[in-house]
Amino acid sequence: MSAEDPLQQVHLFEPLDDAQLARMRESMREFHLAPGDTLFTQGDPARYFFLICVGSVKLFLLSREGEEKVIDVLHAGAMFAEAVMFMEHQSYPVSAGALSETRLLAFDNEAFLGLLRESPELTLQLLGTMSRRLHQMVREIDELSLHNANYRFITYLLQQERTGPDRVDLNVPKQVIASRLSMKPETLSRTLSKLREKGLIRVEGDTITFLDEPGMRRLLER
Amino acid sequence: MSAEDPLQQVHLFEPLDDAQLARMRESMREFHLAPGDTLFTQGDPARYFFLICVGSVKLFLLSREGEEKVIDVLHAGAMFAEAVMFMEHQSYPVSAGALSETRLLAFDNEAFLGLLRESPELTLQLLGTMSRRLHQMVREIDELSLHNANYRFITYLLQQERTGPDRVDLNVPKQVIASRLSMKPETLSRTLSKLREKGLIRVEGDTITFLDEPGMRRLLER
Repeated sequence: MSAEDPLQQVHLFEPLDDAQLARMRESMREFHLAPGDTLFTQGDPARYFFLICVGSVKLFLLSREGEEKVIDVLHAGAMFAEAVMFMEHQSYPVSAGALSETRLLAFDNEAFLGLLRESPELTLQLLGTMSRRLHQMVREIDELSLHNANYRFITYLLQQERTGPDRVDLNVPKQVIASRLSMKPETLSRTLSKLREKGLIRVEGDTITFLDEPGMRRLLER
Repeated sequence: MSAEDPLQQVHLFEPLDDAQLARMRESMREFHLAPGDTLFTQGDPARYFFLICVGSVKLFLLSREGEEKVIDVLHAGAMFAEAVMFMEHQSYPVSAGALSETRLLAFDNEAFLGLLRESPELTLQLLGTMSRRLHQMVREIDELSLHNANYRFITYLLQQERTGPDRVDLNVPKQVIASRLSMKPETLSRTLSKLREKGLIRVEGDTITFLDEPGMRRLLER
């Protein structure tokens, strides 16, 4: 595969060997959609899963009154509708339509399921790939939340009125601060510990001393 | 299963029926570790995957010099080492040790792989579960990033000097603001559009008019 091969973006294909990849490529179709075009409608038999090469796609449900509820908006690089292939009733549970000029690759469900049926080993490898991806994402979510919390808390600290050259007094209980900064009290505690461990602040009761204000500001720039 | 059944936290068990769950429960072991205890060492044959019930666990590698590099810290509710079961060489790629008093459930790899071998249908259901979880997490990461960006940008706007009663002028290019707020320029654009769509601000060139400042502040409290 070349570096720009869009099939490299499909995590389901990670454990495939060249012959298996070639089989998926044979059954592959390309779709071009204009803005507003429908790709499939809720209840349609699910024959393909998709990779967005260019453009963006909305997944939506229609209420009885015909009102549209958008479930998700997906952009280039995203794969969708692949979970349907593993379900008992293979029909699309939502509708999909293009939001802009969109180019999609469609992969045949039966071709992929055929590969899995022939090779239990491939199936296990795929379970491994997905397990590892799930762990990566849990970590990413964790880091994002913490990064977020760090940023908010440092900004808050630097905005407080000083009671000494490098000192602020938290006059409100920590859970009130946490709530004001939209984070859980545990997250605030972890943030405080991290800043202390890094030697950026000293905490004595309600008093916080800035040991390294430039260092705190540098954390905001990341 | 009762509402407090820890096995409900194991996403790998989601598609299991009662008989299959009972088999996993039979082969299950419980481990109690004190802080500093080692659970397994890199290279050990992988017999179990784990769920943390109480406490926390670090996953780490040892350098040749015996220095420890922590890969991950996991807390109660987290599952780990399950990806190893799907690999060709079933030995733990890292070491694991307890950071505090820890109670773990250990599930037998062979018992779980046995269930998958007997039932291709179960295997497909599991692939479905994992696909759906991956999509949820992609969405969660997206929302966290955007929430983050919203918070930062609104805070930034409200801190700017007013050039009219409800008006600020962005005197620096948008990519500079984005960089200062640690976000991608595209994310800043999406944030601006969202605030405009919600009727909170009006954007004319470099001038931003606050149409609903209390509404902006409410977004910060979420």
